[in-house]
Amino acid sequence: MKLFLAEQKRLISAFLEKFLLEKENQCLAIDSWGKDLCQRLFDFSINGKMIRGALVSLAYSLYQKDDDDTIPEDVVKTAALMELIQSGLLIHDDIMDRDVSRRGKDSLFFQYKKVFDQNKVNDSYHTGEAFGICVGDIAYFFAFQIISMLNIDLFRKNRLIEFLSQELATVGLAQMMDVYWGASGESPDQKDILKLYTYKTGRYTFSLPLWLGALQAEASENDMNSLVTIGENLGVVFQIKDDELDLYQNQSKTGKPQGSDLRSGKYTLFIEYLLKEIIPSESQRFNAFFGKGDLNESDLLWTLELLNKYGIQEKMESIINLKNETVYHHLDKLNIRNSKAKDIFIQLIEYNRLRKV
Amino acid sequence: MKLFLAEQKRLISAFLEKFLLEKENQCLAIDSWGKDLCQRLFDFSINGKMIRGALVSLAYSLYQKDDDDTIPEDVVKTAALMELIQSGLLIHDDIMDRDVSRRGKDSLFFQYKKVFDQNKVNDSYHTGEAFGICVGDIAYFFAFQIISMLNIDLFRKNRLIEFLSQELATVGLAQMMDVYWGASGESPDQKDILKLYTYKTGRYTFSLPLWLGALQAEASENDMNSLVTIGENLGVVFQIKDDELDLYQNQSKTGKPQGSDLRSGKYTLFIEYLLKEIIPSESQRFNAFFGKGDLNESDLLWTLELLNKYGIQEKMESIINLKNETVYHHLDKLNIRNSKAKDIFIQLIEYNRLRKV
Repeated sequence: MKLFLAEQKRLISAFLEKFLLEKENQCLAIDSWGKDLCQRLFDFSINGKMIRGALVSLAYSLYQKDDDDTIPEDVVKTAALMELIQSGLLIHDDIMDRDVSRRGKDSLFFQYKKVFDQNKVNDSYHTGEAFGICVGDIAYFFAFQIISMLNIDLFRKNRLIEFLSQELATVGLAQMMDVYWGASGESPDQKDILKLYTYKTGRYTFSLPLWLGALQAEASENDMNSLVTIGENLGVVFQIKDDELDLYQNQSKTGKPQGSDLRSGKYTLFIEYLLKEIIPSESQRFNAFFGKGDLNESDLLWTLELLNKYGIQEKMESIINLKNETVYHHLDKLNIRNSKAKDIFIQLIEYNRLRKV
Repeated sequence: MKLFLAEQKRLISAFLEKFLLEKENQCLAIDSWGKDLCQRLFDFSINGKMIRGALVSLAYSLYQKDDDDTIPEDVVKTAALMELIQSGLLIHDDIMDRDVSRRGKDSLFFQYKKVFDQNKVNDSYHTGEAFGICVGDIAYFFAFQIISMLNIDLFRKNRLIEFLSQELATVGLAQMMDVYWGASGESPDQKDILKLYTYKTGRYTFSLPLWLGALQAEASENDMNSLVTIGENLGVVFQIKDDELDLYQNQSKTGKPQGSDLRSGKYTLFIEYLLKEIIPSESQRFNAFFGKGDLNESDLLWTLELLNKYGIQEKMESIINLKNETVYHHLDKLNIRNSKAKDIFIQLIEYNRLRKV
């Protein structure tokens, strides 16, 4: 699995380098910021794990002949446009969340803020945000331009554009829900949280790239629908694991402080389940630190004890198992031709469920 | 001309209403903000003059038979997607420029800010900005989805996607230049200002929609290139007129305070030419109020006198005449079939040059 992911990242990066180098030359005619932008966008994009891009290739590979493991140029391009869109979304997200770091570096708007500080530009933070908005937009437009470069027939091109745009609009809406809960303090219910996990993580991170790869492979309608369902379920599992790691793993493994979701007051499924169980006195103590930006070790440990006492981790485990069963149920129905790709897919499904980082 | 513009606006609005109503239903499944978003996006979009959309139809009409003035559904859809993109760009621009009003109403992010104030949401201004970023993104994705609905062949669809994306990326870059000059106080030179006028106003507002309409009409390559050149020149004229009206027209006509560009320190072509002529003592007085947010009547009148003294208005007039000559030169080369559409085009060219609002 790791070898496959690394190889896809190499292919996607090579395409993005070529593509953005061409863009650099086009942009130079307009503005000195253009070259700088293309370079920053490239650095930002290749710094990610490129899971979404790799899933495009993986879904394509499922339908390849058993002895064939070449990834056609069209599939690499589709994977690359997914990664450019992901860059655009992250660049915008970081502005919304005021995140100053991303992928181990300064987030993009914050990079510009620092440049503006050096150049003594007024209002450097807001000007950085303005540049970030533009660069995110441009990343989408670059991504859409790659669609014109795909050698697929009109029917599939239209389907690709329709499905991609629809899912991206959905991500935008899910992001609005997420932003609103964060700012309003309104607590979403289980259904809302599962919707967010399904739409923002599931359909976007897993279903969309899997569907795009299957489209390129000319997979059957049934298979494409199954892959979307698989993606939704993998996304929910991924997100619950993410919430779990935030609670139980220390910073050295995850790269962010343990309990950061408690600190920021994020209503994860863990917390939503817990809040339904705890008694008033516990609720009082919990609310005193939840979302207050500060969390001491004893409050964290006390929360973990509560989660244990009310059996929340077991409940989450059972949701994960249920979702994974659905994944395998739909996987069995796929008309997969390539056993090697299927093995990698299964490894990925298991990694998604068992990962420790 | 006015009749033609009004009719196009009616057709585009009718399509957007149908399209966004369908989106409302799809969005409802995800999130309660979805319906609200589609309604706001519709209201925002139909509040504009829809010049860009109308130019798509106008360019198409040039190549229609003389007795035919029906606008096919595909052309209306293309016009509508132009208007959705314009909405997305304006929504993002207003965040960057901190503009709280647009098209006679609250700007979109500011509408959300007010909703959040009522709901006692924390950090309502920033949360409004976050929503505005999302809605702008979603407007682009909706617009791109309409491309999948166009019944044009693969060759033209690819060309449409390529050109549209390329020009939108260019607008983003031009916007970055514009933002940077505003924030840094660095004064652009004539070449830079003309680039901004050409790329941000010319190619985007005029060339792109004209090209899109000509593509639908299956116009010749030569004609499409000529329309791009015509658009660039019309854009420069439009922008110089805009700068002129800001200086010479009072608020009752333009809707914004006279001299607002002097107040905000915008380097228009007028100002750039003036700064090259004035003597040090004049420069000293000018810099004391230029971009300082406050402008009294005597400083405004003094600036107008300076512009007169150094003959700047005549110079601008000669640039406008030169650009308009180029427009007519290229217009003559077009293989126009429909004389009524040509008349409307000429009226528009003249209005662009002579308008008082």
